[in-house]
Amino acid sequence: MERDEKRVSHHFPESAYSFLVSRFLADQLVRYPYPMNHTLTELTERLAVISDLHEAASLLSWDQHTYMPPGATAARGQQLATLSKLSHQLFTDAEIGKLLTVLESAPLASDSDEAALVKVTRRLYDRASKLPADFVEEFAKLRTQAQQRWAEARRGKDFSQFAPLLQEIVAMTRREADYLGYLDHPYDALLDGYEPGMRTAEVKRVFAELKGPIVALVQAIKAQGRLSDAPLRQPFDEAKQEAFALEMAQAFGYDLSRGRLDRTVHPFAQSISKYDVRITTRYNPEYLVPALFGTLHETGHALYEQGVADEYYRSPLGSVQSLGLHESQSRLWENLVGRSRGFWQYAYPKLRAYFPGLNGVPLEEFYAAINRVEPSFIRVEADEVTYNLHIMLRFELELALLEGTLAVSDIPAAWNAKVEEYLGITPPDDALGCLQDIHWSMGGIGYFPTYTLGNVMSVQLFEAAKRAHPEIDLDITEGRFATLLAWLRDNVHRHGAKYQADELLQRATGSRLDPGPYIGYLTSKYRTLYRLA
Amino acid sequence: MERDEKRVSHHFPESAYSFLVSRFLADQLVRYPYPMNHTLTELTERLAVISDLHEAASLLSWDQHTYMPPGATAARGQQLATLSKLSHQLFTDAEIGKLLTVLESAPLASDSDEAALVKVTRRLYDRASKLPADFVEEFAKLRTQAQQRWAEARRGKDFSQFAPLLQEIVAMTRREADYLGYLDHPYDALLDGYEPGMRTAEVKRVFAELKGPIVALVQAIKAQGRLSDAPLRQPFDEAKQEAFALEMAQAFGYDLSRGRLDRTVHPFAQSISKYDVRITTRYNPEYLVPALFGTLHETGHALYEQGVADEYYRSPLGSVQSLGLHESQSRLWENLVGRSRGFWQYAYPKLRAYFPGLNGVPLEEFYAAINRVEPSFIRVEADEVTYNLHIMLRFELELALLEGTLAVSDIPAAWNAKVEEYLGITPPDDALGCLQDIHWSMGGIGYFPTYTLGNVMSVQLFEAAKRAHPEIDLDITEGRFATLLAWLRDNVHRHGAKYQADELLQRATGSRLDPGPYIGYLTSKYRTLYRLA
Repeated sequence: MERDEKRVSHHFPESAYSFLVSRFLADQLVRYPYPMNHTLTELTERLAVISDLHEAASLLSWDQHTYMPPGATAARGQQLATLSKLSHQLFTDAEIGKLLTVLESAPLASDSDEAALVKVTRRLYDRASKLPADFVEEFAKLRTQAQQRWAEARRGKDFSQFAPLLQEIVAMTRREADYLGYLDHPYDALLDGYEPGMRTAEVKRVFAELKGPIVALVQAIKAQGRLSDAPLRQPFDEAKQEAFALEMAQAFGYDLSRGRLDRTVHPFAQSISKYDVRITTRYNPEYLVPALFGTLHETGHALYEQGVADEYYRSPLGSVQSLGLHESQSRLWENLVGRSRGFWQYAYPKLRAYFPGLNGVPLEEFYAAINRVEPSFIRVEADEVTYNLHIMLRFELELALLEGTLAVSDIPAAWNAKVEEYLGITPPDDALGCLQDIHWSMGGIGYFPTYTLGNVMSVQLFEAAKRAHPEIDLDITEGRFATLLAWLRDNVHRHGAKYQADELLQRATGSRLDPGPYIGYLTSKYRTLYRLA
Repeated sequence: MERDEKRVSHHFPESAYSFLVSRFLADQLVRYPYPMNHTLTELTERLAVISDLHEAASLLSWDQHTYMPPGATAARGQQLATLSKLSHQLFTDAEIGKLLTVLESAPLASDSDEAALVKVTRRLYDRASKLPADFVEEFAKLRTQAQQRWAEARRGKDFSQFAPLLQEIVAMTRREADYLGYLDHPYDALLDGYEPGMRTAEVKRVFAELKGPIVALVQAIKAQGRLSDAPLRQPFDEAKQEAFALEMAQAFGYDLSRGRLDRTVHPFAQSISKYDVRITTRYNPEYLVPALFGTLHETGHALYEQGVADEYYRSPLGSVQSLGLHESQSRLWENLVGRSRGFWQYAYPKLRAYFPGLNGVPLEEFYAAINRVEPSFIRVEADEVTYNLHIMLRFELELALLEGTLAVSDIPAAWNAKVEEYLGITPPDDALGCLQDIHWSMGGIGYFPTYTLGNVMSVQLFEAAKRAHPEIDLDITEGRFATLLAWLRDNVHRHGAKYQADELLQRATGSRLDPGPYIGYLTSKYRTLYRLA
């Protein structure tokens, strides 16, 4: 499934730096519930205007991927560039720096929203201000060029076409890291843009813990034999696929009065504001998986955005900064709920009502089919287990590129060697290998790790929810999701960007980032499914 | 048909003053074909940014009326308010005034695009700058309130609920006219916002010429008896209505690579840029008229916007200022082409292929049905002949309100008296009378005359096209519209806002605004149809 790709474009519309900012305390629509001093009011009003511009850009982006006629492409680029430039100008205005400095010496309660606002805004302000305008513009142009070249190279299955531009991207990315500054590793500066506070060393630690058990699990599964996904590959009427997916999304708690589901080539979730969070999907009339699990995945993202506190509307606090936490929510609903045995106890009779062709397929067979593990070339189509290996190899290559120990021209060979080592298969060409993802062409080095971090966090959070409410497992088998959602709302969603991932995990689960529960979950689930010793 | 209403909202999203501005010479996407001095470059670049903001707002408005979930209403209002405020600030920046002053003393060729740009921008700049920011904000708030109250009053069929707010609207409108300034009549200042250069005295002259012949025609038709519209009132599959309407729109020349057709409650055309001009319609499964003629009407608006010169992209010259000219294009394609005998010679066999139920209805009967004249209460549902009487009575009431010779509380009585006098029928309640239109609640006094001015212009332009290309009549009977469209492109569309309506008419038709041809057209067509002496 390519459904992840548009999460990327959501975060890179024009300049990742200006678009990772958002929203504050509305002046007209939402009144802050206590008196504010003038400085805070001034700051929040400026940020609110910037938030409105981001919301407008967000709708333009949604439209670009759904209903925009093709002739409008260049004009849409221009509109987005102007909105991005204006909001960047407004945000990096020296006055905002001054207001932050004043507020940083004000006596704000340490866990207060005001203190969080100052801290979160400062981080974004510094990141945005450290990059010279010329550099931002030059990099934006390079990315536009690189995306086009990447698409051509992928069509032609020829990495060498893309290599010169990727070389420039890597060089610009190193400069970017230097501008942003870092303590230990230039990769830290990049990672921080997608996962605030996260360090390269921490990612290495987590991935090192994951790698052995996952590689071993994949090998054991491979030795054991295959499960069939034949039941998922038969004619499925598209309108019925849509109706069922939407029924499940609503059962989870997706509020259609503040959302909608449309069709696109590459599924995505787009938050215009918390009052307007849209998802898209695509339908394969001969294969149930893309629309069904794609919708559950995007629903997870959407539930997060719809659940942010009303007080954070038009504030940077309303805009989730941790892509790992964001992915934890999509994976939780897609995989931990949506691919669980318990969920299908509830949902399978409903699915069969839509598709009587499944009446001859026992629940166990269906459950095995949706959880089939099979090493494959394309990350976005990978199963729950092998997916993480795709991420690890990208992370390792990105580090080597930044450290200068891997030349861009050597990427295809290095890529294929790692795919062989981790998955036991060999990409037949670059389109199925190192050219498959759009991320690098968009300057997105540092982004990939958040996918696996999201998987790790998803199990920590799910287990904490079940510790607090042991009835959740039973609830799910009976189609009740309200307790789970309420726990996630209270412990994750409503906080928006207030806490970085590490702090939020500590508060919500009592632990820091820990791959243990995720390894336990995967091992236990797939040992049972594949009847491994 | 209520299809006119959203043309209004297109022109009043937040502040009519800032939103009537648009677009110039792109810096990145379109290069101006000759060297410019620094001042002109500076002006065009500033205007281009403002144009981008208007385009963004335009998409937000389209989405609001098509796909936006209901929960997003307040947030959308906030986004539009911010875009409007920012573009107003950028446009009324004193620097733009200085640039205009410099350019006004520069030696620009009198019919050049540069001279036109300076002139058009000056007019918009002065209008925008003359209104104090406090006044604009106060009026915007009043309009928002008034629209809500109007909608409630209309639902309750009780004008007295709306009267106090309309009283305030009238008072604010008088202040607005004073701020804007005028020579002869305060109404001139308002009219100029929708029909640049038009004077109240000129509208009076034109309407006076029209009224007698039209009232006489309506009376003669009424005396003669009725035509039946029964053939139009039978089941018509919605998907087929859409397919046929779209086939006709494309036959006219509507470019779907730069447009699209969606469903809405109130049909409208929305130009985001000339590269993205969208239309909407609505379907009555038991009545062919709304979707069919609604689509042809909106197609006329869309052809205009799609036909503006590429050089005017991102310039105020690209944004048509004359609503009369705009309406002339929608009426030309809807009525002069779409309700003509010749057109249906070509189109009726195609319509019958979609709806075999029409096989029993002879062409003449169908043609009579779509041209049935019948005095009715609702302007937007009125036929071609009586429509103008609805406009005239509104114009007369608006003048009396501004002059202070009519009290707001006396509107219902005055309205009903005029409907009786002109149409021979009596509105049973205010919802079918003086509460039917949204315009006054949106502060749109001065807007109505442009509908009838558009009718008048449409026939002047159509006849000029046929004088230049006598084959157009035959072309239409055979489904060829290219010659007509090309003439309109050259003589109307491509000029965008370069010429005011009077100048454009003079250049294109050799005459100033003249109701004679329109009277001739109506009289001749309906005398034949109704077999009048």
